[in-house]
Amino acid sequence: MIYDSQYNRLALLGSEVRGVSLFDTTLRDGEQTPGIALSAEDKMRIASALNDLGVDIIEAGFAASGDSEKDTIKQIAKMGLSSTVCSLARSNKNDIDRVLDCDVDYVHTFIATSDIHLKYKLKMTRDEVKAKAVEAIEYAKSHGLKVQFSCEDATRTDLDFLKEMHVTVQEAGADAINIPDTVGVIYPSAMTYLIKELAKVTEVPMAVHCHNDMGLAVANSLAAVAAGAKQIHVCVNGLGERTGNAALEEVALGLYANFDTEVVDLSKIGDISKTVSRITGWPIPYNKPITGRNAFAHESGIHVHGVLNNASTYEAFRPELVGMDRHIVLGKHSGTHSVKDRLNALKIKFPDECIPKLLAKIKDLAVSGKEVDDAELMAIADHIMWKRIGEDAVKLKEFAVFTGKGVTPTATVTVDIDGEIRTSSNTGTGPVDAAIKAIRCAVNEKITLEEYKLSAITGGSDSLCEVTVVIKGTYDDSRLSVGKAVGLDIVGTSVDATMEAINRDYIRGRKE
Amino acid sequence: MIYDSQYNRLALLGSEVRGVSLFDTTLRDGEQTPGIALSAEDKMRIASALNDLGVDIIEAGFAASGDSEKDTIKQIAKMGLSSTVCSLARSNKNDIDRVLDCDVDYVHTFIATSDIHLKYKLKMTRDEVKAKAVEAIEYAKSHGLKVQFSCEDATRTDLDFLKEMHVTVQEAGADAINIPDTVGVIYPSAMTYLIKELAKVTEVPMAVHCHNDMGLAVANSLAAVAAGAKQIHVCVNGLGERTGNAALEEVALGLYANFDTEVVDLSKIGDISKTVSRITGWPIPYNKPITGRNAFAHESGIHVHGVLNNASTYEAFRPELVGMDRHIVLGKHSGTHSVKDRLNALKIKFPDECIPKLLAKIKDLAVSGKEVDDAELMAIADHIMWKRIGEDAVKLKEFAVFTGKGVTPTATVTVDIDGEIRTSSNTGTGPVDAAIKAIRCAVNEKITLEEYKLSAITGGSDSLCEVTVVIKGTYDDSRLSVGKAVGLDIVGTSVDATMEAINRDYIRGRKE
Repeated sequence: MIYDSQYNRLALLGSEVRGVSLFDTTLRDGEQTPGIALSAEDKMRIASALNDLGVDIIEAGFAASGDSEKDTIKQIAKMGLSSTVCSLARSNKNDIDRVLDCDVDYVHTFIATSDIHLKYKLKMTRDEVKAKAVEAIEYAKSHGLKVQFSCEDATRTDLDFLKEMHVTVQEAGADAINIPDTVGVIYPSAMTYLIKELAKVTEVPMAVHCHNDMGLAVANSLAAVAAGAKQIHVCVNGLGERTGNAALEEVALGLYANFDTEVVDLSKIGDISKTVSRITGWPIPYNKPITGRNAFAHESGIHVHGVLNNASTYEAFRPELVGMDRHIVLGKHSGTHSVKDRLNALKIKFPDECIPKLLAKIKDLAVSGKEVDDAELMAIADHIMWKRIGEDAVKLKEFAVFTGKGVTPTATVTVDIDGEIRTSSNTGTGPVDAAIKAIRCAVNEKITLEEYKLSAITGGSDSLCEVTVVIKGTYDDSRLSVGKAVGLDIVGTSVDATMEAINRDYIRGRKE
Repeated sequence: MIYDSQYNRLALLGSEVRGVSLFDTTLRDGEQTPGIALSAEDKMRIASALNDLGVDIIEAGFAASGDSEKDTIKQIAKMGLSSTVCSLARSNKNDIDRVLDCDVDYVHTFIATSDIHLKYKLKMTRDEVKAKAVEAIEYAKSHGLKVQFSCEDATRTDLDFLKEMHVTVQEAGADAINIPDTVGVIYPSAMTYLIKELAKVTEVPMAVHCHNDMGLAVANSLAAVAAGAKQIHVCVNGLGERTGNAALEEVALGLYANFDTEVVDLSKIGDISKTVSRITGWPIPYNKPITGRNAFAHESGIHVHGVLNNASTYEAFRPELVGMDRHIVLGKHSGTHSVKDRLNALKIKFPDECIPKLLAKIKDLAVSGKEVDDAELMAIADHIMWKRIGEDAVKLKEFAVFTGKGVTPTATVTVDIDGEIRTSSNTGTGPVDAAIKAIRCAVNEKITLEEYKLSAITGGSDSLCEVTVVIKGTYDDSRLSVGKAVGLDIVGTSVDATMEAINRDYIRGRKE
């Protein structure tokens, strides 16, 4: 172990490895994640991003699972990517034929070898399994495919039998052998032992495919590489069956930081993580290493103070390395450094002497469970600077909305602005839209609605809803004003939030 | 490495360790997670759950951070827990005094020792840091506190200086020394090396505090224990600064599976994970090891087939071990085994010959990105069994809603049921509630609204919204009927979803 001052991190002495590559299975094992399903277009977009990132092999799907899957793999194979496109296949001729239909050059074929799988799933003997594997590999090779072979559930397979399988499949022509930790039970030092034992009989390159059931998929993958494995199976965002496969982001950074090898374009990691999250609809956990929204977020006073002086005090590496940004979060643990930094970023001129008051208000809100985002901060700062005395400047005197079948939603409002009564009506796509438009007409035509957010409602049609409205333009075009309201009636609550935003902006404008 | 047939997993040969314990910092480092803030009541509920689970030490907070924090720690100390209650403190008398105010017996005090922190954060020399540490420890010990000392950023500290600090702080009276991997940069084999080096000069028990910036917090923690460390700092759900600390769930299972030691009541792990998620408002990532909703979820045909035969084929351990449940998810990769299992569980009698049609429909829906939940499955099964011919049985002829300021939201509907025209009006808390009530009155008074779900709207007031309505009682009380609609008008879309649910139930009833 040495302290590497160039990269400002610990490094393993003499641990540099070369010739390691990534086998990405986001489109196969990742798509098998319960709850995820991808269309052909989705898969092609992800394949294109993986190609740009620079993975060696893209496992595009499981050809035998259906015609639409087969067509999708074929389309990806036709994209002309630099990455090798591969399909999964069970060890039988029919599955290999389906792979051949896709016009790919590479097949990943497998059969289970653990006693548990032989007994309860395959209901086959070890000899039968061996024969099936050989038959499939020879068939695939005779049709010109490159073959990566996996003994499914390898880490729960009797070690002598696993070695026998490795010898057999490489004699049958396998170009590479993968060692799947199918249920995610192995431990890094056990992986080291396993790879070293298998290396005694394995001449072709070895890959590993680790699942994260015990939270060790990344560590096991890196341990395998340290022991001599040359390829790691990964999924973007750690997707995959159950708790997923080793996360591409973490494996790539682990190889970079600990083995001094850059297997993909690290600067594109933030982007591909977001892209896959958007396409799959699978959120990136807030605290996911490398690409979670908190990976470079700092809130507590001690940490923010350190980071504003020198980010390396509380960051393992620079966010730009992986195409991410740093951000300072306001909350219960914030100090003055954080608030000033945020107010400056938002270009809010705020008197220094009021900062303790602002900080106290932020902490109050945070303790009641609210996250203090930029909109909230602006609202609190406004409230302190332009504290309202007495009543609203703009009062809602009347408001009525009408909608139905064959009726254009229509709203009428009457407002009192410093004693001046104005009435206006307007239509919209629905009653909320009509109501907000009518208010804007009555108060000031220049007001634009920048954002409308309604929290999800679950329960009954009479459940509470929360509406946030962000407007602009009451006085000038550059300043946003926020209103929030909670209530039982979606339309009425939206009107309340809009009135709050307008009043905040109106009063601020009058005082300036 | 041996294959352990009793627990059906790999085990490290001769790796049994004893005397290991957990130091939980969910209430301190976990609460520092950007975006999380806990009230005193929240903290007490979590402390109580941690105590039931059986952690050795509960770090309840950072006393010097404010009076309310101090009061909270004091309240937790008064709860009479079996776990030791501890507060964090910087290495100065003032912070130790704040800890003493809380009436706890244990303090975790720290000072940074890496050159980066000395230069950019503390602006102190190594000798000054050493003197501060000694002063704080002696002061704490002289006031009767047990002391755990941490050299912050230990893994980036010059190893000779780190050893010097360990010797110094144990001479000053520290009862235990923690080794924080403050920015999460260490690697398991580097951790093994570090602990073995430190063990040469360290006589008191050592703990480790690992952050997950590189996805290795759990592996590093377990490597430390294998090398001789006796305590692991953890957070429930892997909360903590940035990407969090080592997750309690994964560390506890890792110790159990690989070191044959059960440091907490494993059967309560599922519950505490959910409890902390609920209290912090911090979602458990779907694919989080041990307690994520997918940890024991299976969708793909091969996996479901294996699991229904014998769960150990595709599970590392039984879900009951950690108080979790197994479930089968329907989606693009489902086979007949899954669908039949789910229909049986929902007590839906469905003709076998129609299963392929049902499966095809599920796959279609899944490919378009929809998750097929129970409500969806019922709707599809209904649709196939009671396929509508021609038009809706219940037609909406007229519908009008009126709401506003000082107006009770009121709706009127006219429906045509097989030629019979019925008109009804009703009021509600808002226009949606009024409209749904009016429809129910017109069609059948016995209909009850079981669920109303409106997806969150972000964007503008004219954005698309999705409404799901679940009703019961058109024909009998035991059967649910689901309707979904998407549209621009919240009220109109809610009406459409309600009409769809009613029609589905009505037609089914008529055919039976």
